[in-house]
Amino acid sequence: MKKYYIKNAVKNIGQLVTLKGWVHEIRETSNFLFIILRDSTGKIQLTLKKSESTSNLVDIAKTLHHEDVIEVEGVISKSNIARLGIEMIPYKLNIINRAKHPLMLDVTGKINAELSTILDARFLSLRRDDYYSIFKIQSELVKIIRDYLYQQGFTEIFSPKIIKFATEGGAELFKVQYFDTEAYLAQSPQLYKEMCAGVFEKVFEIGQYYRAEKSHTPYHLSEFLSFDVECAFYTYNDVMDFLESLLKDVISNLYSVSNEYFNKLGVDKINLDYKFERIKYDEIILMLNNYGLKWGDDLTSQYLKIVEEKIGKKFFFIIDWPTQLKPFYTYEHENNNQITKSFDLNYGSLEIASGGERIYKSEDLINKLKKIGLKLENFSIFIKALESGSPPHAGFGLGLSRLLMILTGRKNIKEVVLFPRDVERLIP
Amino acid sequence: MKKYYIKNAVKNIGQLVTLKGWVHEIRETSNFLFIILRDSTGKIQLTLKKSESTSNLVDIAKTLHHEDVIEVEGVISKSNIARLGIEMIPYKLNIINRAKHPLMLDVTGKINAELSTILDARFLSLRRDDYYSIFKIQSELVKIIRDYLYQQGFTEIFSPKIIKFATEGGAELFKVQYFDTEAYLAQSPQLYKEMCAGVFEKVFEIGQYYRAEKSHTPYHLSEFLSFDVECAFYTYNDVMDFLESLLKDVISNLYSVSNEYFNKLGVDKINLDYKFERIKYDEIILMLNNYGLKWGDDLTSQYLKIVEEKIGKKFFFIIDWPTQLKPFYTYEHENNNQITKSFDLNYGSLEIASGGERIYKSEDLINKLKKIGLKLENFSIFIKALESGSPPHAGFGLGLSRLLMILTGRKNIKEVVLFPRDVERLIP
Repeated sequence: MKKYYIKNAVKNIGQLVTLKGWVHEIRETSNFLFIILRDSTGKIQLTLKKSESTSNLVDIAKTLHHEDVIEVEGVISKSNIARLGIEMIPYKLNIINRAKHPLMLDVTGKINAELSTILDARFLSLRRDDYYSIFKIQSELVKIIRDYLYQQGFTEIFSPKIIKFATEGGAELFKVQYFDTEAYLAQSPQLYKEMCAGVFEKVFEIGQYYRAEKSHTPYHLSEFLSFDVECAFYTYNDVMDFLESLLKDVISNLYSVSNEYFNKLGVDKINLDYKFERIKYDEIILMLNNYGLKWGDDLTSQYLKIVEEKIGKKFFFIIDWPTQLKPFYTYEHENNNQITKSFDLNYGSLEIASGGERIYKSEDLINKLKKIGLKLENFSIFIKALESGSPPHAGFGLGLSRLLMILTGRKNIKEVVLFPRDVERLIP
Repeated sequence: MKKYYIKNAVKNIGQLVTLKGWVHEIRETSNFLFIILRDSTGKIQLTLKKSESTSNLVDIAKTLHHEDVIEVEGVISKSNIARLGIEMIPYKLNIINRAKHPLMLDVTGKINAELSTILDARFLSLRRDDYYSIFKIQSELVKIIRDYLYQQGFTEIFSPKIIKFATEGGAELFKVQYFDTEAYLAQSPQLYKEMCAGVFEKVFEIGQYYRAEKSHTPYHLSEFLSFDVECAFYTYNDVMDFLESLLKDVISNLYSVSNEYFNKLGVDKINLDYKFERIKYDEIILMLNNYGLKWGDDLTSQYLKIVEEKIGKKFFFIIDWPTQLKPFYTYEHENNNQITKSFDLNYGSLEIASGGERIYKSEDLINKLKKIGLKLENFSIFIKALESGSPPHAGFGLGLSRLLMILTGRKNIKEVVLFPRDVERLIP
């Protein structure tokens, strides 16, 4: 008989159904054996009365352990004692695949394992309500973001992750042996999304990118999920408007669609009922002038924590960054080439996105590349692209897992990535 | 003034609007200058009467070339002579960014460039109606696939693309220098999606994967867009049912949503009004017994072309493949360990998907790994996963770009990938 999902089965009182899932809990009293059966859609109590059930069924049930995979047939009934008021009285029970004990991790109750065990045993930790909820929220989050973008006429692109040249300079890239030559793993779709914005105008990509940074912070990964947007004829102010609207709309939608999962996590909903402030880098420097920070210094997390104390744990933009702190393709202000038309979006001390206006005139790009000593020949195709009718454009890259961390109230980014990669972790 | 998209502007006769876009065509008569302005949403004729327009405007317009980026302000009017019956009479025209001529590629008219030029000049070839349409269709295709899956309760996952072990054996993988150790680029999310199916039951991923094959066929890439599905408690017949329904529903939907782009491509819609046949590998061997093929041989494209001649250019499954032709994780038939519960989905001679039932009992996996000489320790986490209550499961991987090739009637897969990667191509 076809498997019923528990979520649907509990709506069909009196119906004879087949359920398949995992033994979540077992409890025995003198007269009863109770099994909580779990599948991906919910849980249900199986009630076996020792005297009434055929002895064979009870004998099988007594051999069960947590996480055994079983199949049961029976009738869905109302119950006065079962949680949710629903139970199944099975008349048939098959063991499909037994779990081997001890398990690496307890799937029920309060977790007392190290993060490394939680990640090693992802196939088990994901069965816990908390981690299950996080990744259901992730799946909803990307869906809602894409829906928002499609509605606004965006085109989805897939750009290459293996690149010939370390285009952005600066950050450490992973080397790939590409047939008889060397290549790199891309750290962003930057130049590709820019070329596509010169055609489709509004483009986005959600994909994995790579940074070979030996960071040991709770916010960095070697492989990270990036949400990238690029829009022709947008200024950096247009992009900030867009990003703010998107986040407000998406998060409010997510809270409503994934309410059940947020409840399971027991995290507070974050407040979005304010205009995201746009604070100039210069103002941040003034704010921090008692802390030894001088103009041109990067705003490392120690300083951003002070900013968070002053401003609060909320979304705000830091705009108009010094030219030397932003990538080469960022446009400088016409009246001041020391600062750029750029922004970071922060949530308190955590940077979650950065973006800006991009150089779209080939002569400006050539001058900039020469000035900072990057090889023109490595950018020849991109220069050709700017020479072929490139519109002004702006965009951003947003760290989706950082956003998910904030939304799910997690302290370490590895908790919100299925199989994270960092300096120490390459398995599973 | 805020940019109007041409598609919206043409609906607003009498409205004063600002348009921004590209000079697509220029035509001059003794009394008029006609410019076809293009943006990502459509085209419109700008009509400049030489005697009426302020001379300055005509002077500027006379300096324009193909693909220059311009901004015009004017009123949208009905026209008896313009294509689509709509024109704009501009009173203001600014040149935003000039294109440098000669261009690498002609954006209008019949294309006479080599594929390599088309790919080198992607930023230009994408502006042509044909390539533009292909990637708008791609964007719609992935949207419609995901919508179908979400409606059926699937969870979207993101699995790692950098892996420690060459898990599937066989295929050549790209090596990555991962900090102080060596790693590989994943060729599929196989073991990861299987672990996730043991939690979320129905999971999918659309992402890029890697094969270091030195193939020079029109169907192979080093980086390919894969659509992967894995479902707990599904048999391989369930998965084939699901895949057939999905394709019929998605393609029919796509034809309706992207009708405009299919029209521009001028390709025939493929017929899906039949049950996809499920032909046993054994039957294919019988079919081909005059062509020197013997049982156990792989069905290479030369043979599949003969099958296509006999069966026709349509979708069909080839099922029950010999054990030695399928990956180690594929389940053998209980009554015959020479053949597996596996399938390929073909469209004529082109394989577009393959899948099957997977080994879900740890002892079966351990025996299989030993038998074929793969190291148990490389699979220790996956064996742990199977020991922790793994459900029976089945799934497939589908080459999205191959499907897009079929739908858009293209002969080379590189035409339907924005920035393809193969033995020779790593730029742009």
